[in-house]
Formats: sequence, C-alpha cells, structure tokens
Amino acid sequence: MTTAPADDTRWLTDEEQRIWRAYMHAVTLLEDHLDRQLQRDAGMPHVYYGLLVQLAEAPQRRLRMTELAMRAKITRSRLSHAVARLEKNGWVRREDCPSDKRGQLAVLTEQGYAVLSDTAPGHVAAVRQALFDRLTPEQQKSLGEIMSIIAEGLQPSEAGADLPWLR
Amino acid sequence: MTTAPADDTRWLTDEEQRIWRAYMHAVTLLEDHLDRQLQRDAGMPHVYYGLLVQLAEAPQRRLRMTELAMRAKITRSRLSHAVARLEKNGWVRREDCPSDKRGQLAVLTEQGYAVLSDTAPGHVAAVRQALFDRLTPEQQKSLGEIMSIIAEGLQPSEAGADLPWLR
Repeated sequence: MTTAPADDTRWLTDEEQRIWRAYMHAVTLLEDHLDRQLQRDAGMPHVYYGLLVQLAEAPQRRLRMTELAMRAKITRSRLSHAVARLEKNGWVRREDCPSDKRGQLAVLTEQGYAVLSDTAPGHVAAVRQALFDRLTPEQQKSLGEIMSIIAEGLQPSEAGADLPWLR
Repeated sequence: MTTAPADDTRWLTDEEQRIWRAYMHAVTLLEDHLDRQLQRDAGMPHVYYGLLVQLAEAPQRRLRMTELAMRAKITRSRLSHAVARLEKNGWVRREDCPSDKRGQLAVLTEQGYAVLSDTAPGHVAAVRQALFDRLTPEQQKSLGEIMSIIAEGLQPSEAGADLPWLR
C-alpha cells in the first residue's frame, strides 16, 4: 500500500509573494514602457535596440551571430528573426565569417548607426526617468548586486547548460 | 545663424551601465528560464500561468477581462490572444458579464484549476531556485522595495496615463 506523497513544496510566504509580484509588475511595466518609447521614436522594439547597441560597441561594428545571441541572452532563432527585420530596415547587414565558413557576421550599417545615435538620447532619458531617478544611490548599488547574482545563477558554466543562445 | 544644440543628454555612467545591463541580463534570463520550465511541464508560457493564478485567486474564479488585463499589466489585445489560447486548451472559458452587456468575464475551468495545481510546485521551485534561494533576507527586502518603486512610478494615477490595459 502506498500513501499519497506529502506536499513538500516550499510555497512562497506572503512576504515572498509580495516581492515576487513587485518584481513581475516592475519588469512587465518597464519593458512595455521602453518598447513603447522605442516603437514611437524609431519603430523598433527594445530587443532590437539592444542588438544595435551591441554591434555599435564591437570592433568594426560587427559580431558573429552566435556571439551576438550570447551577449543579448536570446536564442539563435529569435536573433535570426530580429536580424532579418533589421536587415530589411537597412540597419544591419549579414556577411560570411572569413575565419569560419559556417559562421555569419552581423554588421551595423551607417544607417543603423545613425538611427541608434538619433534614438539613444530618448531611450536613456526613459531609463533614467523610470529607474535611476527614482532610486537612491544605495538602492541602485543594491539593484546591481542583486541582478548580477540572479543573472550569474542562471548562466551555469558547465557544459550542457540550458542557455538560450546554445539551443 | 543657429548653433548646433549642445548635447544635454545625461548619458549613463559606467556604474549605471553595469547596473542596467545586470538588470537586463537577469530579467531576460529569468523570463526565459520560467518560460522554459512552464512550456516543458505544462505547455504554456509564463504569462499564461500568471493569468491562471489571477483567476484562481479571484472570487468564484472569474474576473472581468479589463480587470484581468490590469492585474497582469498587459494590453487588452495581448490578453484576448492569451485567453483565446487558454480557452482552446479548455482551461478558461468566457462568459458575458451579467452587470455590463459589453463586458466579458474570463472564468477558470475545473480543468484549468487542475493544470494550475499540477504545475504550481515546479514553478515555485524554479522561482525559489533562481531568485529567493540566492538572495539574503536583506537583499530580498531591498528587491521588493526597489521593484515597488519602479512599478509605482510606471503606473501614474492621473487620467490619460499610457497604461497597457487602457490601450
């Protein structure tokens, strides 16, 4: 005879629920806010903006697609889709990787760089207004520490880890 | 003769950049992690799970669509799309609102409640493992305070505010 398994789930306490919901609300609202601002000002969602920034900061404004997916923390299929759209806008172009026949590079075009330059001030203002301007220096420091801990925990270094850009 | 406008953008400092990127990385990785876990265990993305939770907690397990959009902090069109999918799964059904002819209710079905009950332990474990288990009690408290400040700042109470569920 078997007995029903005891419920050993460590349910969230009321306080943990409040923290978790505040996190979900802030994250959902902030992403909506930044998407909205970037769609209005440049016709692109926040994730595309992040890709343009990564390319602008890279040597010769180009990165291997696999590296770009890793830096943006997204899957390769999501990146392919985004880059196809950015290519259509004339903001990015793809080139074969000279050192690896199967590899591809994403290259920021002059037009892409210009769009990014025009869009950056409004985006930075939105980030400041929604986040930095509302937090004390101690809260900002604490936020950075907490978010680094969470991000590092979700990127185990062992082989076979389920990371978006390795799928 | 006009002079070029001075660049009065308050660019992020190096430290602010680090904080902002840690935030983006943590948020992107955690959402991917929870989506992945819920897709694997129940074939639904994280946002759908959140809708089922809201309905399960409501009196008679039902909410007006507008109220559900507000609680989930999403647009009405995104909610409509999600509820259509949940309806197809047999987890939610829609009913006309008895007090308002134009209003609609989303109602959690028995099947939806059962799926939620089966899925919740795995989801809570994933949230604990990725977030609560990694943070000290002080960091958890700080995270709750910071996220509440950000969420409140993005939900101005004045009429005409650009809130997702009012679009």
